[in-house]
Amino acid sequence: MPPRTRTTGTAESLATKQREISISEFFTKNRHLLGFDSPAKALLTTIKEAVDNSLDACEESGNAPRIRVEIRPEKDTFKGLDLPSLADTNGNGKAKTKAGRGAPVREEIYRIVVEDNGPGILPAQVPKIFGKLLYGSKFHSLKQSRGQQGIGISAAGMYGQLTTGKPVTVYTRPGKDKPAHRLTLHLDTKKNEPVVLSDDETIWEKDHGTRVEIILTGSYKRGQHSVDTYLEQTAIANPHLHLTYVDPKGEEHIYANATEDLPAEAHEIQPHPYGVELGLLARMLKDTKCRNLSSFLKEEFCRVGVKTCDLILTTANLAPRKNPKRLVQDDIRHLLDAIAVTRIASPPTDCLSPIGEELVMAGLKSGVEAEFYTSVTRPAAVYRGNPFQVEVGLAYGGQLPGDELAKVMRFANRVPLLYQNSACAVTKSVLTSNWRSYGLQQSRGALPTGPLVILVHIASVWVPFTSESKEAVAHYPEIIKEFKLALQEAGRQLARFVKRRQREKEAAQKASYIQKYIPHIGDALQEILTLEDPEREDVITTLTDTLERSRKF
Amino acid sequence: MPPRTRTTGTAESLATKQREISISEFFTKNRHLLGFDSPAKALLTTIKEAVDNSLDACEESGNAPRIRVEIRPEKDTFKGLDLPSLADTNGNGKAKTKAGRGAPVREEIYRIVVEDNGPGILPAQVPKIFGKLLYGSKFHSLKQSRGQQGIGISAAGMYGQLTTGKPVTVYTRPGKDKPAHRLTLHLDTKKNEPVVLSDDETIWEKDHGTRVEIILTGSYKRGQHSVDTYLEQTAIANPHLHLTYVDPKGEEHIYANATEDLPAEAHEIQPHPYGVELGLLARMLKDTKCRNLSSFLKEEFCRVGVKTCDLILTTANLAPRKNPKRLVQDDIRHLLDAIAVTRIASPPTDCLSPIGEELVMAGLKSGVEAEFYTSVTRPAAVYRGNPFQVEVGLAYGGQLPGDELAKVMRFANRVPLLYQNSACAVTKSVLTSNWRSYGLQQSRGALPTGPLVILVHIASVWVPFTSESKEAVAHYPEIIKEFKLALQEAGRQLARFVKRRQREKEAAQKASYIQKYIPHIGDALQEILTLEDPEREDVITTLTDTLERSRKF
Repeated sequence: MPPRTRTTGTAESLATKQREISISEFFTKNRHLLGFDSPAKALLTTIKEAVDNSLDACEESGNAPRIRVEIRPEKDTFKGLDLPSLADTNGNGKAKTKAGRGAPVREEIYRIVVEDNGPGILPAQVPKIFGKLLYGSKFHSLKQSRGQQGIGISAAGMYGQLTTGKPVTVYTRPGKDKPAHRLTLHLDTKKNEPVVLSDDETIWEKDHGTRVEIILTGSYKRGQHSVDTYLEQTAIANPHLHLTYVDPKGEEHIYANATEDLPAEAHEIQPHPYGVELGLLARMLKDTKCRNLSSFLKEEFCRVGVKTCDLILTTANLAPRKNPKRLVQDDIRHLLDAIAVTRIASPPTDCLSPIGEELVMAGLKSGVEAEFYTSVTRPAAVYRGNPFQVEVGLAYGGQLPGDELAKVMRFANRVPLLYQNSACAVTKSVLTSNWRSYGLQQSRGALPTGPLVILVHIASVWVPFTSESKEAVAHYPEIIKEFKLALQEAGRQLARFVKRRQREKEAAQKASYIQKYIPHIGDALQEILTLEDPEREDVITTLTDTLERSRKF
Repeated sequence: MPPRTRTTGTAESLATKQREISISEFFTKNRHLLGFDSPAKALLTTIKEAVDNSLDACEESGNAPRIRVEIRPEKDTFKGLDLPSLADTNGNGKAKTKAGRGAPVREEIYRIVVEDNGPGILPAQVPKIFGKLLYGSKFHSLKQSRGQQGIGISAAGMYGQLTTGKPVTVYTRPGKDKPAHRLTLHLDTKKNEPVVLSDDETIWEKDHGTRVEIILTGSYKRGQHSVDTYLEQTAIANPHLHLTYVDPKGEEHIYANATEDLPAEAHEIQPHPYGVELGLLARMLKDTKCRNLSSFLKEEFCRVGVKTCDLILTTANLAPRKNPKRLVQDDIRHLLDAIAVTRIASPPTDCLSPIGEELVMAGLKSGVEAEFYTSVTRPAAVYRGNPFQVEVGLAYGGQLPGDELAKVMRFANRVPLLYQNSACAVTKSVLTSNWRSYGLQQSRGALPTGPLVILVHIASVWVPFTSESKEAVAHYPEIIKEFKLALQEAGRQLARFVKRRQREKEAAQKASYIQKYIPHIGDALQEILTLEDPEREDVITTLTDTLERSRKF
């Protein structure tokens, strides 16, 4: 046995250090997991979370969404230090470079305002929704929505509080007949609980809706990963959205809605038997209110009717009248095995609300100037028991640059994904598709080169993201397969266009030869056969007609 | 105002659906975030988490680690269904293909056993350490360790329970004078709390140590992402570890320790002032036991002595005797600004325990057969107030394949990172280094081609990973800079070797010319000058000598 040279590491001394970590402490330290790793990204993530929530709420309540987003540079409201004179005390004017290596740099401060015409929130619910991580309505519900984890908006508030110390402000009004409330709140990160600083009735010009204000340190940038790009793409994937955006310079941009119709409502479904694992099944059996196995299977799952239920129970050798709570572990295994060998219909797909081929195309047309557009909406498929559906849109030619790599726009449940493209199943699917066979150039392992924009959308009751910041889709084989099938289908349509255009180009060239040479042939014939001028013209017309007809289109 | 067509989405109806989500529910649904997305990865992650914990515990207690890892195929212990006859009831022999699209497939079941000679765990602590997510000793401690979040091993147990329903079994003995305990436990995922099924004193041949057994569905595979690769690389980065590994076939592999010395002990440090943000500072001020600002700064932070403390407080215009709990928000901002403009020494680095140039090289030599080895350990640097240190090792030539892309081995706090290489700052740093200038081939944006293995290690009190599964290092600019500097330094040493070898090759070629032609010149001279044979030999010797000397090495 080696000698114990260190006395700090005994079981007793280690035990004194063990303690519980609250989820908010965890995400404070790991905030890059939530998309708050840089000031620029924090600004984008905050707006994204607020807009996602607004869109979900409007759609759920049947209100055509009208959303207003503002980024206001915040005059430092606290009576700050006079930095120049401060620097003077240190002997020179460059305050920041005076400090040591790694000294923090003061970022700009912005007030983010997002306001919607949704159903509002009961004032009693506001604190937990905005001031507690892992609290929400969508985590346990199997239907397509943008939010799913109950982390996003409260994390944004927590980030604001961490960087500026300022509380989150929420205005909300649940209806015309109810007063509006204005609340301010903090999040107690040690306990992951909200602390309400104020809650007052207030006058608000809106009949119903919610407005959230978060003050944070951020950095406003343009380009590929910017708020501007996010909002543009949001408008493309949500043609029913009317969006007003006031940028930090105070300029107002309006994205009018392209359609009056709300997307088809997504309906909540029960879990599908194929998506259930042993541990989950055990808990469902324990928690159910059903008194017998037969009703448990039929009521707690989708696609289990009388016949399927009988088949499963016969196979598992379990009595239909058995109390679900009485199943021992072997019974549960039998039940699971029986499910696995029973043919059960795929889950219903009315829990999904894809954009649709027509609106994908309309969205692309409104956002991208090109010559050719196509779109594909695949039938719904299933991974781990969760229904999902893939859509692809392509825009080609026109004003798009022909010598650059194609641009890929990724969407999940109508939300644009701007970061982590290399980790995303969408990117992988595009890269591993053979674009040469559709008439494009493509280096091995690279995006195709050409005047092309590729839009890919996945709609699902549960999009599997690679991190809580929801920036990239995880590599489930079933999902990648659907991406590739959709890309192929759209690619073949593109190929037809690219090839037809090539033929037309060649044909135009031939036509120009005919126009050029036939008159000369006419002249020659006139001379040889001594024709009159009208006769010569007849010959030219006949020749042109014949040749035109003989060219194969 | 648009008509309300949907009655489901009122503030009231939405409120009824809002609820808290426990962290264990969250990670059950998002278990790919923890590295349990596929059965093969789940097997690896489970072993990784257990071995990480064992190594940390052994090092903390000063025990030279002796660890045993077993993967035992588990005979399905429950009285399972007789599947063939079951299939017969459905009419044919192919039970699995009978089921519908997306039906689950039964995976293999393994019992994972990891046993160490560490300090053991107090039996009272076992349930929370193995049966509660976000519970541990390392989250709040600033020193280098493999574990940091208190999620890993309990998540592995949760995965086992979810897929097989079996509890986690833990044997532990805190010392020779204390009895060993055997506990079995479950995790209540709804509450994120442990449920102890049994806790008994037991006989164990070990004087001290811990043994954990988890039964899970998994898939054992070989190759780049396998348990075998992980254990091999763990041995490379931990030359003090004696590891016994019994693979699923029952074959025993022994990785003997290459050194008797434990790594230098890492010491816990206080946070550095530059790494503190407003929110954190506010909480530290609230929680401190110090009675005045001056002692608060000196005791709760590292690198703040009397002089620095005075400078900060003078700049912030705050009295040293002021009670930390009395600071209002403006004061806190002043304090933070004052810290930012004060020059403060970098944090101490005894919280780190790098492998060291010598042992990096020894590790590479034991694991990789090559011709040339080099290694670089950079001085410590700082990101967001956290000290970190980068090491690089290169192995070149010999048996390594010359026409393939270089192989990159990534390590964080001595733990091999096998997945998500494209998302990792290490990969980015290697890709964006210019390997051509070191005499290697490299396509743009690709790894260099040649007989090369690149080892990169980051040691830090807090490694910023891109996800909870700790598979890739986040792209902090300070960290990427250090990676690149270390790669450059090692690359230059490699370049010297590659160039010398090239010169030697050319020289050898010249020498062979001399050997080939000088005898003929000798013959010719003999004929022209009619020399005797010994004279001819003299001439040849003289010529050879002269030419050899004139060649420049």
